Amino acid sequence: MAHIDLGLDEKAHPGIVGPLRFRPETAKPLGELAEVLLRAPHPTLTPGERELIAAYVSGLNDCDFCRSSHAASAAAQLPAGMPLVDQVRADVGTAPVGARLRALLQIAAAVRRSGREVTTGLVETARTAGATDLEIHDTVLIAAAFCMFNRYVDGLGTWTPRDPEAYARAAGHLVANGYLAI
Amino acid sequence: MAHIDLGLDEKAHPGIVGPLRFRPETAKPLGELAEVLLRAPHPTLTPGERELIAAYVSGLNDCDFCRSSHAASAAAQLPAGMPLVDQVRADVGTAPVGARLRALLQIAAAVRRSGREVTTGLVETARTAGATDLEIHDTVLIAAAFCMFNRYVDGLGTWTPRDPEAYARAAGHLVANGYLAI
Repeated sequence: MAHIDLGLDEKAHPGIVGPLRFRPETAKPLGELAEVLLRAPHPTLTPGERELIAAYVSGLNDCDFCRSSHAASAAAQLPAGMPLVDQVRADVGTAPVGARLRALLQIAAAVRRSGREVTTGLVETARTAGATDLEIHDTVLIAAAFCMFNRYVDGLGTWTPRDPEAYARAAGHLVANGYLAI
Repeated sequence: MAHIDLGLDEKAHPGIVGPLRFRPETAKPLGELAEVLLRAPHPTLTPGERELIAAYVSGLNDCDFCRSSHAASAAAQLPAGMPLVDQVRADVGTAPVGARLRALLQIAAAVRRSGREVTTGLVETARTAGATDLEIHDTVLIAAAFCMFNRYVDGLGTWTPRDPEAYARAAGHLVANGYLAI
């Protein structure tokens, strides 16, 4: 049971879906933010890479619903699939990603702890590996946004499915229809 | 100097203003979210009370720009002004606010640490003090949103004015024109 009465069947509206239905006025900008950050056309970061950052931050924040959802979305859109997502979550320092994406993931981990943890050194490492200003900006904002989404979902005590198939099905719907269709 | 080239005069675009100008695609939903959460008509929470929650969370996150900005906005809209904001920031347990607002601030502090820190006990205390489901929802989302905004501002290393008058002037503009005018 969520902490508040969402006015709907929670098992049919798991995780963030219930609160989005409860408060459509805030659901609109939240959905648009996710769509722009994770799916809109981007000159260099693929949707799979952006979903990987979201899944990584959500795992560090112990938000099971967001981690499972965005891991499934990343896996559905990355050629290396769920094994790569699992490797990044286990150890970003040794996971088989390029130097640029590794440095961006390390910036995301710093943002998760605190904005003040993003050092000039972390940014320089990313830049040396080829990261652009837009990539650094978007990585900081994706990581920051999931510090919001994770707290929104867990702070309201919403229901978290346990079946991995449920997340795979939702990811398929998401990849086809986007965040504004939730 | 911010961590990325924002392409503008940083001292004329302090804190979050620079990143909002740098990336208008994300600025749009971020501005709409702030407007809905902090200023849109609300059946029970005043804009001053909502700005107080934002200032309190930003202070706990050590984000000087957001704390100063939202403290000034809260002070401009609360009858008790900045002395009350300072008392809440110093000790929410003894500050002269009602039991309902105190309980909501304590929920916000829990959300800031982690969504998982929001306990049934904290929610029951708020409910016993008269808090509604909408107030609890909005408090959780305001606190979560400022865990994003704070990280966005500090994670990009943006410029933070030190002059309190600058924040008071900006608060006057905000109260008159809203977040979508930034």
